Amino acid sequence: MGSVKIGIVGLGRLGKRHAQNLRYKVVGSDLTAACSIVPEELAWAEKELGISETYTDYDEMLAKADLDAVFLVTSSSMHSAQSIKALEKGLHVFTEKPMGVNLEECRNVEAVVSRHNKQVFFVGFVRRFDPSYAYAKKLIDDGVIGEPFLVRSQTVDLDEYAEFQVDFVPSSGGIFLDCNVHDIDLARWYLGSEVKTVYSKGGSYVHKAFDEVDDADNTVVLATFEDGKMAVIAASRTAFHGHDTHTEITGSKGILKIGITPAKSRVEILDGHGARQECVKDFYERFQEGFLNEAQEFIDCIIEERRPIVSALDGTKATEVGFAMTDSFKQKKEIVLG
Amino acid sequence: MGSVKIGIVGLGRLGKRHAQNLRYKVVGSDLTAACSIVPEELAWAEKELGISETYTDYDEMLAKADLDAVFLVTSSSMHSAQSIKALEKGLHVFTEKPMGVNLEECRNVEAVVSRHNKQVFFVGFVRRFDPSYAYAKKLIDDGVIGEPFLVRSQTVDLDEYAEFQVDFVPSSGGIFLDCNVHDIDLARWYLGSEVKTVYSKGGSYVHKAFDEVDDADNTVVLATFEDGKMAVIAASRTAFHGHDTHTEITGSKGILKIGITPAKSRVEILDGHGARQECVKDFYERFQEGFLNEAQEFIDCIIEERRPIVSALDGTKATEVGFAMTDSFKQKKEIVLG
Amino acid sequence: MGSVKIGIVGLGRLGKRHAQNLRYKVVGSDLTAACSIVPEELAWAEKELGISETYTDYDEMLAKADLDAVFLVTSSSMHSAQSIKALEKGLHVFTEKPMGVNLEECRNVEAVVSRHNKQVFFVGFVRRFDPSYAYAKKLIDDGVIGEPFLVRSQTVDLDEYAEFQVDFVPSSGGIFLDCNVHDIDLARWYLGSEVKTVYSKGGSYVHKAFDEVDDADNTVVLATFEDGKMAVIAASRTAFHGHDTHTEITGSKGILKIGITPAKSRVEILDGHGARQECVKDFYERFQEGFLNEAQEFIDCIIEERRPIVSALDGTKATEVGFAMTDSFKQKKEIVLG
Amino acid sequence: MGSVKIGIVGLGRLGKRHAQNLRYKVVGSDLTAACSIVPEELAWAEKELGISETYTDYDEMLAKADLDAVFLVTSSSMHSAQSIKALEKGLHVFTEKPMGVNLEECRNVEAVVSRHNKQVFFVGFVRRFDPSYAYAKKLIDDGVIGEPFLVRSQTVDLDEYAEFQVDFVPSSGGIFLDCNVHDIDLARWYLGSEVKTVYSKGGSYVHKAFDEVDDADNTVVLATFEDGKMAVIAASRTAFHGHDTHTEITGSKGILKIGITPAKSRVEILDGHGARQECVKDFYERFQEGFLNEAQEFIDCIIEERRPIVSALDGTKATEVGFAMTDSFKQKKEIVLG
Repeated sequence: MGSVKIGIVGLGRLGKRHAQNLRYKVVGSDLTAACSIVPEELAWAEKELGISETYTDYDEMLAKADLDAVFLVTSSSMHSAQSIKALEKGLHVFTEKPMGVNLEECRNVEAVVSRHNKQVFFVGFVRRFDPSYAYAKKLIDDGVIGEPFLVRSQTVDLDEYAEFQVDFVPSSGGIFLDCNVHDIDLARWYLGSEVKTVYSKGGSYVHKAFDEVDDADNTVVLATFEDGKMAVIAASRTAFHGHDTHTEITGSKGILKIGITPAKSRVEILDGHGARQECVKDFYERFQEGFLNEAQEFIDCIIEERRPIVSALDGTKATEVGFAMTDSFKQKKEIVLG
Repeated sequence: MGSVKIGIVGLGRLGKRHAQNLRYKVVGSDLTAACSIVPEELAWAEKELGISETYTDYDEMLAKADLDAVFLVTSSSMHSAQSIKALEKGLHVFTEKPMGVNLEECRNVEAVVSRHNKQVFFVGFVRRFDPSYAYAKKLIDDGVIGEPFLVRSQTVDLDEYAEFQVDFVPSSGGIFLDCNVHDIDLARWYLGSEVKTVYSKGGSYVHKAFDEVDDADNTVVLATFEDGKMAVIAASRTAFHGHDTHTEITGSKGILKIGITPAKSRVEILDGHGARQECVKDFYERFQEGFLNEAQEFIDCIIEERRPIVSALDGTKATEVGFAMTDSFKQKKEIVLG
Repeated sequence: MGSVKIGIVGLGRLGKRHAQNLRYKVVGSDLTAACSIVPEELAWAEKELGISETYTDYDEMLAKADLDAVFLVTSSSMHSAQSIKALEKGLHVFTEKPMGVNLEECRNVEAVVSRHNKQVFFVGFVRRFDPSYAYAKKLIDDGVIGEPFLVRSQTVDLDEYAEFQVDFVPSSGGIFLDCNVHDIDLARWYLGSEVKTVYSKGGSYVHKAFDEVDDADNTVVLATFEDGKMAVIAASRTAFHGHDTHTEITGSKGILKIGITPAKSRVEILDGHGARQECVKDFYERFQEGFLNEAQEFIDCIIEERRPIVSALDGTKATEVGFAMTDSFKQKKEIVLG
Repeated sequence: MGSVKIGIVGLGRLGKRHAQNLRYKVVGSDLTAACSIVPEELAWAEKELGISETYTDYDEMLAKADLDAVFLVTSSSMHSAQSIKALEKGLHVFTEKPMGVNLEECRNVEAVVSRHNKQVFFVGFVRRFDPSYAYAKKLIDDGVIGEPFLVRSQTVDLDEYAEFQVDFVPSSGGIFLDCNVHDIDLARWYLGSEVKTVYSKGGSYVHKAFDEVDDADNTVVLATFEDGKMAVIAASRTAFHGHDTHTEITGSKGILKIGITPAKSRVEILDGHGARQECVKDFYERFQEGFLNEAQEFIDCIIEERRPIVSALDGTKATEVGFAMTDSFKQKKEIVLG
């Protein structure tokens, strides 16, 4: 069992987490290089992680560093180009979602991936690697709820981050692409089918500023799949109790609920407010195990020469559906895909 | 505080429950007459409730009995005509939902009600009188969750009753009218607004027989309201854990969940199946307090000369939206109301 | 099915509740007379319940009123004497707990009850008639948890009532007799055995005033039974979340928990305090169904000539064990009963 | 930040887990040597962890290996002697609980620790390092529940392991020492006081074989502390739902419950058994994060020259109280410590 030499690209908040995992927690990972356009981030990598090989230019890293794989935690708009360059260089690639910011980018990546099918290409759909989401998949595969036909999934963020998000709407692509990409991926994964129609509604119920950028702070989408199955996908930027990402899967023999109450811990407090559980604040807190597990799985796939359970097609589909959901919202009508 | 002389009409399963409440549990109620076309039901009323004045004909009861009010628990198709006759006779009227099986019937009732505005007219939207649903309304009115803008509400029945329901689709009007009328009423009540658009999807995922009668066993509707608020309304006939009616209301400052786990009691069982709560089997079990409370409120409104919180307009709106939801499902498109 | 003519004695807070149930909610009950030494209470009974036959003297009521039964909701110190007088007069008797304030009183009642064994004698162990506690008994009898051998049961009151309780310690007999009588009764009922040893500990952790009257605000008792089974019985006067009465029964095949979170309703609130459930404030709120059910069962036992599931022996045992628990606390040692 | 060279001793089930953490997950840890009397375990360490320096003799390892610390996961009876040898060799020591199998052993270790007070000595009270237990401590320290005065804590194992445990009673010391050592430690930690009296009861309710070795399968202990605080400590070997370790802390302003339902994941299943959560099977599953966190804390204490929050005194006290609890059970009386 050799180790996989990795160069991480992007060391913002999430990048730092990935870097720490790759440096200290992921078995078989050898984090040898880091790339960032922010000097402070590279200084952090040297000081905290002991990484001496740092780059401010991605192309230079690809040219000079002795790497087996890159780990892309850069801005969404750079994911596809950076993925393609690394693949063509013969490297394994982990890219954060989204795989591309439009359908053309996604398809370009897919094409390159298919030409490099001995290399591992991995899109960071972290929820699939959360222990509870993964266990739900196992229960479904074991037939515990019969045939699944309805997914309800939501991504809900704390209100305190909302105002900050307004400025990011142009680059994030808005609430459907920013929040619901994971829900789309989960619905496809659990239902084993492709989205055929989407119908989106929403509004700026709390923060009017989202109206001005043609976005919303709370949305609901009703989607149907090619085989008639359904999904209800919701997003909110205005919660006060916590980051409330949860999913429910209805099947012909039972129902699974995953994380309905986003409890911060196993502690319950009984006081003047009643019997209560404090909730997780953000997706970093909720999915810290998932982030570690997905990085481990990336490394294991490389070492064991396996294909990951997430494919480039999954990356394309999530983006495609996210855009259709956005179109439905803006055009105020049902959108038929494909 | 005098007592209100009541004639109950219809003594099927739900009728019997109402009759027992009116006879023994509702303060100020004097159940003096019973009407049914089923002789066994009248025999039951005599024997179990001691009601000697029984009728097989509704008109005869109206003509002969000394009544202040009628309590209609008959087939849906008879509600409007029987309501109108009693109102015109000067009686107070409680009618089970739906108020009418089509919009014309509903509007006829509304017109008669408006001409008899000193009489109490009460549509049996029982969930409003469930302690938890009523408490949620109070919390909302108290501002606990700020301005409510999204309701998610579902009515889910046990699978064991499903096959039995197929034959009733023609008379019940199908899953949207049969199951979701209460959810529609709750959404209107909590949001304080009228439905503007509905978009329905569903299928016969478990019992194909529903397909043949152009109905479904699981459905989801995404509705919008005149002021831009939203509701997600779901129905299912295929649950295995219990009758799972629950509702969630999202507001600008918080969220209320009502009855998310439909626990049968306060007992939790820890055994080889894990930590578990048994669930209520049907709406009789879930809403037994609601049935009692609504009957008490009907009597109190009569005695105290108050208007009930449910109006004839509420009855019309629930039916109107239920039909629009059905149309959307059958025509496979969004329906705009009004 | 005739009706049972009842005279209620004592119309304080709990007495009023019983009176309302007996007047309006209990099938077969005919509340014809009321007795109280407080004129305002009798005026309330006339005005609110329409009871014209009122007495300020218990003996006078027994002499003059045409009664089948008395319902005693008086001070604890009067229960045994009033029970005996009514039994000797040939009446059925419901008495609130405790049956007597010392063992001698209890045994006197037992003796009289045994000489009047055609009359119903009923001690108000209300928890046995709560739907969840009763359902737990059914599950145990059905063998769901195998052979039960350990009960953990607690009675916990809101801190806001604590200061008020200090003055009542001399008459109530202190925390073990005041709070734990129900827990003792439940443990005996579920385990089907008699207490053999008790070992009590406690203190005045929050309100030092209890120390001065040789009482405590929080206590725990470890009891063993004649067949080696065990119970842990706790009491607290210092809760902030609600009246938290709950019970857990461990058996050889599983565990039952009853009411572990004393939720006020089925409503959950998600806000800045987390995901929370408000809790019931007091035993009136928690056991309102139990109070109704026990009164109904009392009447049904009279009409159907059945024996109630609570006997005079149960009343004696609860008092006996309560005193032993108090002795153990005060003498700081294990007490062996019998 | 240098790395700490560690030799692990004992590679049974728990030893393997610790070894994997130390090898791959603990930052600053350099697992360089392994010692075991079982050749297969050393082969596993070489193959799975790449550790080439292996020993079958502890003394030989101490003599030859270049180590900063030892990590003892051996039989309980070897902990004290091995701890002392390593301390006298100048090494940092992590030892699994118990620190010693009798009070004399514990005190010997304490004495040696005090003479080597620049070395880190760490007893594996893993629950203190579980995120939820640690968070509860923080909440208490923050004053959220006021002054804590009552701890209820239990260790409950699956029935399927019970028969297997009978043979281990002589070496494990019985149920109080085997199961409750962690509960004792938690009660001392949360209450900040020392145990003064213990009173134990229990029996062999399910597996009679425990009777024959003077042990029990279910026990309860009521303990008091020097300042009058209390703890109820229970153990069971006969659960069917899961490994149910949980703790409740009552304070003057509120209550904390930690892990009341030992859910396996965030997945809830709704099916014919009701609404249910599967539970963790054993303490490995429940405390996997705790095992990692405690090893990390051990390393961090060494690197940062800090004292751990668990001391040799904690190890002594847990053993001392465990023996007193056992004595109380066997002698059928309250035991006063100290």
